[in-house]
Amino acid sequence: MNLSRTHLGDGACSTLRLKIDGCNHTGAMTTLGCRCEVDGYEWEICLFYPWRFFSGDHRIALTLVFLSDAGANRHPSGSSAIVALLRAAEARSSGYIKNESMTVEYILVPSPNLPKHLGELLESKVGADVTFPVSGKSFAAHKNVLAARSPVFMAEFFGEMQEKSSGRVKIRGMEPSVFGAMLRFIYTDAVPELDRMETATANLAQHLVVAADRYQLDRLKVLCEQRLAFAIDTSTAATMLALAEQQGCSQLKVKCMEFIAGGSCENLDTVMKTEGFKDLMANSTTMMAELLVAAHGRKK
Amino acid sequence: MNLSRTHLGDGACSTLRLKIDGCNHTGAMTTLGCRCEVDGYEWEICLFYPWRFFSGDHRIALTLVFLSDAGANRHPSGSSAIVALLRAAEARSSGYIKNESMTVEYILVPSPNLPKHLGELLESKVGADVTFPVSGKSFAAHKNVLAARSPVFMAEFFGEMQEKSSGRVKIRGMEPSVFGAMLRFIYTDAVPELDRMETATANLAQHLVVAADRYQLDRLKVLCEQRLAFAIDTSTAATMLALAEQQGCSQLKVKCMEFIAGGSCENLDTVMKTEGFKDLMANSTTMMAELLVAAHGRKK
Repeated sequence: MNLSRTHLGDGACSTLRLKIDGCNHTGAMTTLGCRCEVDGYEWEICLFYPWRFFSGDHRIALTLVFLSDAGANRHPSGSSAIVALLRAAEARSSGYIKNESMTVEYILVPSPNLPKHLGELLESKVGADVTFPVSGKSFAAHKNVLAARSPVFMAEFFGEMQEKSSGRVKIRGMEPSVFGAMLRFIYTDAVPELDRMETATANLAQHLVVAADRYQLDRLKVLCEQRLAFAIDTSTAATMLALAEQQGCSQLKVKCMEFIAGGSCENLDTVMKTEGFKDLMANSTTMMAELLVAAHGRKK
Repeated sequence: MNLSRTHLGDGACSTLRLKIDGCNHTGAMTTLGCRCEVDGYEWEICLFYPWRFFSGDHRIALTLVFLSDAGANRHPSGSSAIVALLRAAEARSSGYIKNESMTVEYILVPSPNLPKHLGELLESKVGADVTFPVSGKSFAAHKNVLAARSPVFMAEFFGEMQEKSSGRVKIRGMEPSVFGAMLRFIYTDAVPELDRMETATANLAQHLVVAADRYQLDRLKVLCEQRLAFAIDTSTAATMLALAEQQGCSQLKVKCMEFIAGGSCENLDTVMKTEGFKDLMANSTTMMAELLVAAHGRKK
């Protein structure tokens, strides 16, 4: 059996043509183990030929099974898609199979665009019902979207203690750039800035992890932890450890501890000379004890 | 070089441990071509060792490159993730490389949950500001979310012609189950019902394609076209062709035309005996002419 594939059309609506040569089986079920890229993902193409359908009749099914889908519904369109399903008895008369060759055209669905649409809603300010003044800058947003994403905003806008004049909520102790990035995350589930490797980005992530903790945005918090883990070096390790401890970032804390207590003596010497380490010594005796235990464990 | 991997922890926050044995190179760049499943997706693990960073210093970078990522940003966390980035000079003293073995722990970020959160917002009705009575059933929703997703709702609620008493919008000519499925699509970008293969699902898809056209939900329309394409058989082909023509479903139309005009004579005979074909004959002479041309083209 041979498989060939062609993409037809492009843009919002396009079709994938799969042509399988050598469809001369009639009795046993045949599976076709062949990988194929569809909609930007890798899929396994499986041909069930013929296949006893739950209604009792025999069908020929051609399916795309999403590869390496460990969790449930990781792929936006589901983890498996049936490309063609036809009655075995009609396969030849339907025109799908001709000269022992089966041709199927599969309509491709565009990728999900919910984050894009909500991002545009945030930018357009259409229907916004709350304004956040943040250090001289003002942000317009939608209470229901904020509440859907953050338990803190839910309580603030729709809980029993909701503010009466909640059309305007002043934000203290946060930079406008940080609040703006947090808003974009709330609407789009992403912070593109965090993908950059500049020092400024690590700085943003440090502030964003505080904001994420304040508004209980758990996924944003892990995104920031992940980004900050790349910025651990001798100059930042101690400060980062203090931040991780303060904001309850367990994974980041483990990585900082490992870096400080698990490296070489020269490494530890350099870390101990930083202002961050001096602050840690002055303010957190518990952390110092934890570091001591970790370093001792490494020596064994 | 050998690679071993371990998942640490589970739930919201977990870590992937990558251990690479045989890191004894010092001069040339080395790439490690190895596949790995992370966060439910397949990635290629690349080790750049050492790698000249844009700031000028030499770094060791371990990256995960998302496999078969044809489009931009298909994977929620971006198409490539840097797992570790450390200064080449510090690699050994940092503790990452010990006994020619490099151990890196990568914090895994949970999958995006925007559709889940918005789905919960729809169900909870918190902050809903519009009610749709649909044949005796009532649906509560949020104008801003509807407007973000559908240009028709945008014009209705925020355009120049916006209805004055728009807190209640009666929906005519649609079943509650269809309107409900459309609402869920608007909030979650998915219609799980369409993945089922029952006849009732094809029936829902037929009504949903009309609803999607009415509210300009382009992606939903293609999802329905894809589902309906599986339901094409001798009994449905003619009705489906009429629907595709009426709702401007170009891909579905092509598939129906192929099925009717491209199959066997027996196939055509059976289709021509259906009520759907008789309706097509009575109401659409253009379609009949198109079918004739298609069938003629096949004969050549």
